[in-house]
Amino acid sequence: MSRWEPNARGRLEQAALELYIERGFEQTTVAEIAKQAGLTERTFFRHFADKREVLFWGAGALRELLVSTVADAPESAAPIDAIAAALEATGGLFQERRESVLRRQSIIAANAELRERELIKLATLASAMAEALRRRGVTDPAASLAAEAGIAVFRIAFERWVTDTDQRDLSHHIRESLVELKTVLADR
Amino acid sequence: MSRWEPNARGRLEQAALELYIERGFEQTTVAEIAKQAGLTERTFFRHFADKREVLFWGAGALRELLVSTVADAPESAAPIDAIAAALEATGGLFQERRESVLRRQSIIAANAELRERELIKLATLASAMAEALRRRGVTDPAASLAAEAGIAVFRIAFERWVTDTDQRDLSHHIRESLVELKTVLADR
Repeated sequence: MSRWEPNARGRLEQAALELYIERGFEQTTVAEIAKQAGLTERTFFRHFADKREVLFWGAGALRELLVSTVADAPESAAPIDAIAAALEATGGLFQERRESVLRRQSIIAANAELRERELIKLATLASAMAEALRRRGVTDPAASLAAEAGIAVFRIAFERWVTDTDQRDLSHHIRESLVELKTVLADR
Repeated sequence: MSRWEPNARGRLEQAALELYIERGFEQTTVAEIAKQAGLTERTFFRHFADKREVLFWGAGALRELLVSTVADAPESAAPIDAIAAALEATGGLFQERRESVLRRQSIIAANAELRERELIKLATLASAMAEALRRRGVTDPAASLAAEAGIAVFRIAFERWVTDTDQRDLSHHIRESLVELKTVLADR
């Protein structure tokens, strides 16, 4: 019978982020993470499949939020506006965990395998949003193009949010980057 | 001393594509590829680092063509027009090898690891084009946004080219997809 460990998941995540930053992702073992959190490896594996999952478990919630926001957009909303609404809706998720998000970001930036995994996650989110648009009756290629453009906007906005010394929120950067993409694509 | 093998590389590539389609990428060994091509494993490894590289060796040439076309665009060209010119310039490369490209595509579509590798390749091409724009004096985020938008256009155009029963060329689909992206992003 296992003891109930209050907030084991949060403690493990915290410990993992600290160690990944201190020693590097590759160099950190699950045993070390568990030890740092004052828990057992067994507890770690009840919460995470492996040490990479500590960095990617949030992708499912993100996808659901994006998909449901696209689905709930007013019928009259243009595809790109439904996508923009979905991206902006994620702002709060990142904002409230800003410190963890920034640490996670620096860990991912430092490791090629993790950067690749992050790219794949973003591509999966683009596919999920395109599918949500198609369920609204948007045909391809408009559905795929709007979703891909949205993810491009999100990536740029996210980078700017991470480095923004004025700490404006992510939604602000999403709106601004979307305007910039429109400008880049406008015929002169 | 090794015998000179005429067109060893082409024969190995041809044999690999055939086997990947027949048996699946995972199930095919380098020994089988070499045997099918009438060559030795040693010859295989003189041309390719591993069996995956048979599918990705063209990425370097593609990148160079994209980067040099962006660099050579007229000074007055808008960033997105320099990107569009670069993407269209690749049309010929794909067109002249259409049969191999289609086979490669079906192999990649059937394997999750290869699909991921292809995504990463495209992201690398986007970064290279963004960098080429920055060398033209385009600032960020415009440089990154134009390059990412270009890759989104390319992906959609490529899919349509692959399935186009009228066999219109890739450049046609790139121009058409870019117009569609502009429409998706136009304010109504």
